[in-house]
Amino acid sequence: MGPAEDGPQPVPHREGGPAKRPLVATQVERPACCPKYHQAIELIGRRWTGAIVSVLLRRQALRFGEIAEAVPELSDRLLSERMKELERYGVVVRTVRPGRPARVEYELTEMGRALAPAVRELERWARRWLA
Amino acid sequence: MGPAEDGPQPVPHREGGPAKRPLVATQVERPACCPKYHQAIELIGRRWTGAIVSVLLRRQALRFGEIAEAVPELSDRLLSERMKELERYGVVVRTVRPGRPARVEYELTEMGRALAPAVRELERWARRWLA
Repeated sequence: MGPAEDGPQPVPHREGGPAKRPLVATQVERPACCPKYHQAIELIGRRWTGAIVSVLLRRQALRFGEIAEAVPELSDRLLSERMKELERYGVVVRTVRPGRPARVEYELTEMGRALAPAVRELERWARRWLA
Repeated sequence: MGPAEDGPQPVPHREGGPAKRPLVATQVERPACCPKYHQAIELIGRRWTGAIVSVLLRRQALRFGEIAEAVPELSDRLLSERMKELERYGVVVRTVRPGRPARVEYELTEMGRALAPAVRELERWARRWLA
């Protein structure tokens, strides 16, 4: 089941204490994991999905074969699965351009392009910290 | 097999054309997926890992049970696996504080804290784009 079907996850509440209570050493308030962030990272962090988004961010529109070439270790079957998932989320749009043969192109939607700052920051981290 | 064992992945090269050739419609140069970024997203995007890092970013040090409470749908077995993985990468450090019982705490290393901008950007995206 993908994150889309999961819906927001419950955020645990601690009994007692006002909501805006400052975080103190006794840690009466527990940090709760943001369900939307969790959903986002589960989408983008899926095996290969981050790589696909990163590749699409550098171009206007790409054909299936071009994406496959840019992420060479990904099988066509898995790439097709990932593209459908990204389409379902609204991150990617698939366009069939008429012609012989018809040309199928994928590009990021506004929602997908909005991932650029997160991807850039992660790329920066990776360059600095991964050997 | 985790990304740590995978090592950097080969970046495909296109024959012909200088490296700085401008990107044109014929797309002789293909966008190549950054292997380090791929490695980073595969680490952070692993099921639950992003959520764990996000929780740790909000605190100095947390005990196992506190992390478990903040990410309530994660089993202890899986949390333990993820923490070991993050330790292996150098993102998290585990400290045993003497006492009866001994107190085991986890906190982010400098490398782990450096993930803050990427996590913040992804949180921002999630708030804006996920229903």
